[in-house]
Amino acid sequence: MIKKLLVANRGEIAVRIVRACAELGIASVAVYTDADRHALHVKKASEAYNLGPDPVGGYLNAHRITSVALGAGCDAVHPGYGFLSENPELAEICIRRGLIFVGPSPAVIRQMGDKTLARSAAIAAGLPVVPGSEGNVASLDEAIDAARLIGYPVMLKATSGGGGRGIRRCDSEDELRRQYDRVVSETTKAFGAAEVFLEKCIVNPRHIEVQILGDRFGNVVHLFERDCSIQRRHQKLLEIAPSPQLTDEQRAEVCALAVRAAKAVGYENAGTVEFLFDQEERFYFMEMNTRLQVEHTVTEQITGVDIVQEQILIASGSPLSFTQDDIQRRGYALQFRINAEDPKNDFLPNFGRITRYYSPGGPGVRTDAAIYTGYEFPPYYDSMCAKLTIWALTWDKALARARRALLDMGVSGVKTTIPYHLEILKTAEFRGGLFNTAFVEDHPELSNYSARRPTSHLAAAIAAAIAAHHGL
Amino acid sequence: MIKKLLVANRGEIAVRIVRACAELGIASVAVYTDADRHALHVKKASEAYNLGPDPVGGYLNAHRITSVALGAGCDAVHPGYGFLSENPELAEICIRRGLIFVGPSPAVIRQMGDKTLARSAAIAAGLPVVPGSEGNVASLDEAIDAARLIGYPVMLKATSGGGGRGIRRCDSEDELRRQYDRVVSETTKAFGAAEVFLEKCIVNPRHIEVQILGDRFGNVVHLFERDCSIQRRHQKLLEIAPSPQLTDEQRAEVCALAVRAAKAVGYENAGTVEFLFDQEERFYFMEMNTRLQVEHTVTEQITGVDIVQEQILIASGSPLSFTQDDIQRRGYALQFRINAEDPKNDFLPNFGRITRYYSPGGPGVRTDAAIYTGYEFPPYYDSMCAKLTIWALTWDKALARARRALLDMGVSGVKTTIPYHLEILKTAEFRGGLFNTAFVEDHPELSNYSARRPTSHLAAAIAAAIAAHHGL
Repeated sequence: MIKKLLVANRGEIAVRIVRACAELGIASVAVYTDADRHALHVKKASEAYNLGPDPVGGYLNAHRITSVALGAGCDAVHPGYGFLSENPELAEICIRRGLIFVGPSPAVIRQMGDKTLARSAAIAAGLPVVPGSEGNVASLDEAIDAARLIGYPVMLKATSGGGGRGIRRCDSEDELRRQYDRVVSETTKAFGAAEVFLEKCIVNPRHIEVQILGDRFGNVVHLFERDCSIQRRHQKLLEIAPSPQLTDEQRAEVCALAVRAAKAVGYENAGTVEFLFDQEERFYFMEMNTRLQVEHTVTEQITGVDIVQEQILIASGSPLSFTQDDIQRRGYALQFRINAEDPKNDFLPNFGRITRYYSPGGPGVRTDAAIYTGYEFPPYYDSMCAKLTIWALTWDKALARARRALLDMGVSGVKTTIPYHLEILKTAEFRGGLFNTAFVEDHPELSNYSARRPTSHLAAAIAAAIAAHHGL
Repeated sequence: MIKKLLVANRGEIAVRIVRACAELGIASVAVYTDADRHALHVKKASEAYNLGPDPVGGYLNAHRITSVALGAGCDAVHPGYGFLSENPELAEICIRRGLIFVGPSPAVIRQMGDKTLARSAAIAAGLPVVPGSEGNVASLDEAIDAARLIGYPVMLKATSGGGGRGIRRCDSEDELRRQYDRVVSETTKAFGAAEVFLEKCIVNPRHIEVQILGDRFGNVVHLFERDCSIQRRHQKLLEIAPSPQLTDEQRAEVCALAVRAAKAVGYENAGTVEFLFDQEERFYFMEMNTRLQVEHTVTEQITGVDIVQEQILIASGSPLSFTQDDIQRRGYALQFRINAEDPKNDFLPNFGRITRYYSPGGPGVRTDAAIYTGYEFPPYYDSMCAKLTIWALTWDKALARARRALLDMGVSGVKTTIPYHLEILKTAEFRGGLFNTAFVEDHPELSNYSARRPTSHLAAAIAAAIAAHHGL
């Protein structure tokens, strides 16, 4: 069993992993760059080590991080999401230096991280895939030929892409000509690799993904699906489990496909198989994420399974302690990403001092926050400052609870996505459980909210007190 | 359907009811006395009305409260727990003035509030009761005669008592002689009635209670039981659902008894039937509480049912929307009462400014708090400042999560029961699920903790900022 684990991440996910360690009786080691000196994960971990002045680079230095782990007497490293989580080199360095990497094998990370290899693996496992180019396209001419076979509109995608970056829709040959060089150069900058490929564009699909857990003894179970169709610019904004858009038969179908894919590649640890679900109600394999997802919370709320603890137990060599039949789902969960962004200003990031943070309470409310009253939210990282996860027995009760909890929550000092989420909750489509990935684009009026919530006397008083103290 | 509801209470339970109203789309009206001007329930409700300078008396003035309700256009009153919640007069005044009282009928409140009448009702319904005097005893001589028949030790109890007050154990006739006048006078002061009765003392029982919901159409369901054996001086300190001390057969037995009792008295709304469970594993009816309980949260966590919303729906005249078979339980929940008390100093209340409140997060953690950073905790009321409710799939996982969340939680400025709860979690008896109402008394060493949690830099900084601002 793992005894001491280094968390190679920051923000709410680092806090989340520290909490899982605490519940398993495992010592946790945080790492932080200078900008994160006052971050919550540093305060919550058993120990914390400084990675130097580079705010982002520090978290990307696999050699330094594994050296800290060894120096602190750790036997394992958890990568969280983002940063090095899908970089096979961190997994390889860990193994080489005698550390357990909490995740799948480097070979599987590499295979699934390469979108054309992943696509081939899915085809080999018998999964439906979106019609596309055979592997990467080596030039604009090859891309044009492939697009003629597939039919427009097509998606031009970076082979090493992820998180919604390195992806562009082309409605015509002209547009493909205009975008090709742009995507290749963007891709080279962002991922250090120039490979791109083409897929048929599924117009206004739903994004359905299935949570998988596999152990080293070949056991694979699914924890049902999540609906992540509500996105802005290919970035998920709010996630739901189970999807209110699927019938039980469709749910069973997509979950079985995901298990089949995971078994085919010998998948170990937690992973997510992502699908597009088109207007004709067909599923297409999209990609597999070989790590913990931001939105794992909604799956935890409907199944009761602590996914992060399971990751650590699997990495320790334990077999899964449950079978597929033991996994029961109950109710509906929604996760709202509370980002320090201004929805009225094209979701522009909005950093600064959190003058007040009030965490909502009561039944069916879970918070995973990286902020606290008085925290200076740094400008170097992702703008997500908290996740609000709501659970209730029925979809309608969950919607009512979500509205209540979003109004209950208090974040002062920075603009956030809270009022935008409240607008989403008002729409008939969302309430009716009928929406697709075009939802945000189709509803520009959602950022036209004007009603400001009345500032409580307390918030004003505390803001004034803090401002006075800091001579602002 | 109720449209606007006055919450005739304060503290966390008032916040809880306001939240339920918000989720049901019902406007909520808070009331507060001068001492509660900055209380959280005032900030969270749709509207708030002042009840004047008397800190406690204001909340006990049924005429004034119902006048406020009518003046504000309310159609219903929720009494919460404590204060007027078990006073049949509030229910009567509400009905007389055309307001819906969220609770059972005044007749049932009166019947169950009188312990000897309640006992007779239980006997009539075929429930086992503790051997005791036939009705009240009118004098010391009658008490001595009854005690001879019952056998020592006996419990001398106030007929109108509740919440652990007006109750005394007598091990001998000498002790009964010494205690009799004392209990009668205490009872007269506390409850305005001098009636007392005797019961055989069940030595070191477990306290098991069953949550009931009944509608006006005669439907009664139970939501399983709670184990409230961990008490100090007859005051519950932490509560559990389901009881780790019962077999499934015992669970079915006690739940069926509770339903039978509720049906026998035509019970409507939420109520709790309390039982003693003796060392020979027999259940005895103790009393029925005709209101919401502090510890309703643990039942909500294992069943997913929002009990406060159900109370309001029932009071609106709706039939229960589920049958007994629809009620499924999952996992274990524990509620820790976070009291502003010093466990090292005989649990002496400890009021003052909350210089920092940090609400714990992550999976399986629910908070119901009446405090916030900067709040001045008033000395006039109950010392409970927050409830921390933990849920996990298994008892062992729940214990681990409880420890983590108690350490995660931050309350600075007042001493609390947090470190004491951490000590309880360490004991083999508690962990093994074997404990009774003598647990706290049997473990005086639990208040000998010495390790202080390291104060975080943030807490110190904020405390300093607030102190500086207030010129302390």
